[in-house]
Amino acid sequence: MAVYTEVTDDALRAFLSAYDIGEVVAFRGIAEGVENSNYMLRTTAGDFILTLYEKRVDPADLPWFLGLMQHLASQGVTCPQPVPGRDGEALRILADRHAAITTFLPGIWPRRPQIAHCGPLGQALGRLHEAGASYAPRRPNALGPNGWRPLLERSLGRADEVAPGLGADLSAVLDRLLADWPRDLPEGQIHADLFPDNVFFLDHKISGLIDFYFAATDLLAYDLAICLNAWCFEADGAFNVTRGRALIAGYQSVRPLTAAEGDAMPILAQGAALRFLLTRLYDWLNTPPGALVTPKDPVEYLRKLRFHRHATGLAAYAG
Amino acid sequence: MAVYTEVTDDALRAFLSAYDIGEVVAFRGIAEGVENSNYMLRTTAGDFILTLYEKRVDPADLPWFLGLMQHLASQGVTCPQPVPGRDGEALRILADRHAAITTFLPGIWPRRPQIAHCGPLGQALGRLHEAGASYAPRRPNALGPNGWRPLLERSLGRADEVAPGLGADLSAVLDRLLADWPRDLPEGQIHADLFPDNVFFLDHKISGLIDFYFAATDLLAYDLAICLNAWCFEADGAFNVTRGRALIAGYQSVRPLTAAEGDAMPILAQGAALRFLLTRLYDWLNTPPGALVTPKDPVEYLRKLRFHRHATGLAAYAG
Repeated sequence: MAVYTEVTDDALRAFLSAYDIGEVVAFRGIAEGVENSNYMLRTTAGDFILTLYEKRVDPADLPWFLGLMQHLASQGVTCPQPVPGRDGEALRILADRHAAITTFLPGIWPRRPQIAHCGPLGQALGRLHEAGASYAPRRPNALGPNGWRPLLERSLGRADEVAPGLGADLSAVLDRLLADWPRDLPEGQIHADLFPDNVFFLDHKISGLIDFYFAATDLLAYDLAICLNAWCFEADGAFNVTRGRALIAGYQSVRPLTAAEGDAMPILAQGAALRFLLTRLYDWLNTPPGALVTPKDPVEYLRKLRFHRHATGLAAYAG
Repeated sequence: MAVYTEVTDDALRAFLSAYDIGEVVAFRGIAEGVENSNYMLRTTAGDFILTLYEKRVDPADLPWFLGLMQHLASQGVTCPQPVPGRDGEALRILADRHAAITTFLPGIWPRRPQIAHCGPLGQALGRLHEAGASYAPRRPNALGPNGWRPLLERSLGRADEVAPGLGADLSAVLDRLLADWPRDLPEGQIHADLFPDNVFFLDHKISGLIDFYFAATDLLAYDLAICLNAWCFEADGAFNVTRGRALIAGYQSVRPLTAAEGDAMPILAQGAALRFLLTRLYDWLNTPPGALVTPKDPVEYLRKLRFHRHATGLAAYAG
């Protein structure tokens, strides 16, 4: 939940005067997204989202993110579309933050992912990858393999508070993953954070993908591995192979995986599990007890990581 | 900011099947309000707010709150109107919480209150009091004078952590206020929490009053005293008599104060300052450091309390 920066009505009005989107009618903070401040903005011209970029986002990356969203929307991917001001600029300053207005997407994100969500999700991910192929600028993935060791080192001293031996265990996993990490798989623009709260559904169809602020240029199959982690485990920790099959089949109906991508899926899925384990571990160790925003349990991803270590080939996920 | 309870899409759909308000189109948590979980709900029939009542609200009070909102709306006060289901019931259960749908109000709450807000605010408060006169059920004010001593006692042991001598100071203030508290002023239904974030404006006019979950039956002029505290001090702690004059004149244009109410304003304003000081003090002492929801500084209300102790009559506020 996130409104870190308050916007005065005078500042909002001055900001909107740079746009051709009418007069403000309603303005409410949205309790979703953890990185930035988001407001639902209704004007006489329609509904929009106003985002103020907070400190975790590097301002130098913003043109790349907004450019990607604009490009994907032009290719038919339903994602928030940056709204330019009269000067053509989509990115400006509000309340001492970089800020942008994007289009509002209808839909509800699934609080409890089900099999019926996974096929459409796979298709949407495949289309995103296809559409991204014609977006030329590259953005290295700061939370990809090269980012994992520095991330682990920030938590290593206290990792054993979460589970005995966790620090040594993760160090060994990391060494092995970095040695075995596939380097020659197809690359492209990936979302890199396509969890259920970033996927809106309406009438059992996908109505929008949101929150592209972790997107980067990386292995396409790694994005699918992130979704396997985020969508295909039961609440009790068991992998649901029916969901996995639906997700992978949906993806392949748009973009068939190469044999090498299929073979690499267990290691890609371990990498994805480690990546979310590491950021959750850091947040877990650095959020005070009793805070209203409860950090997510890193142990959930430790269990997922263990599952992937015993998986072989694509069949482990698609049955 | 507040979404304490997540609602699954299945639960939402089942809940909405009890209503005649069409199909869900969008559903987003709102980062406003600190007591309950609030969602913006868009259906094919329009926009609504879905509120899930959290633990600080006594379920036994909910029919009184919803009845008051319904009554005020029927009297022309623009406030959220409870939307009944097909069975006529506005209050039901969702995700193990009491829940209600209300109408969505346009507007923006003023992050920085100004003189131009205070006249319309006073008028709206006067109209609320007039409209409430025909709502017969009574609700004792749990945060009125009778609630202050138990509230202070919960913080007394640690009050001096906030300011040296604060505990003894507040005990003395409380003894004096309870001895001098006026008992024979006009009573009625009061909002009791009409801070800027509960008042929406559009085109310099009030477009709605929200959040009636502290409303109670109490001294009408005490509600005005709360607004003097909430709207008429500068950021540097100085009382802005121009704002006070506009607020009081706006109120009196609808409901003239009696001479006794005017004379009692300094003690009512002290009581109002003490009430918010006590709840902030408790939250301040009981919120862990570093929590994302920062408790509001109780010292702000200590300064306001001191101002009111040196005020005489209505003239101190209206110049």
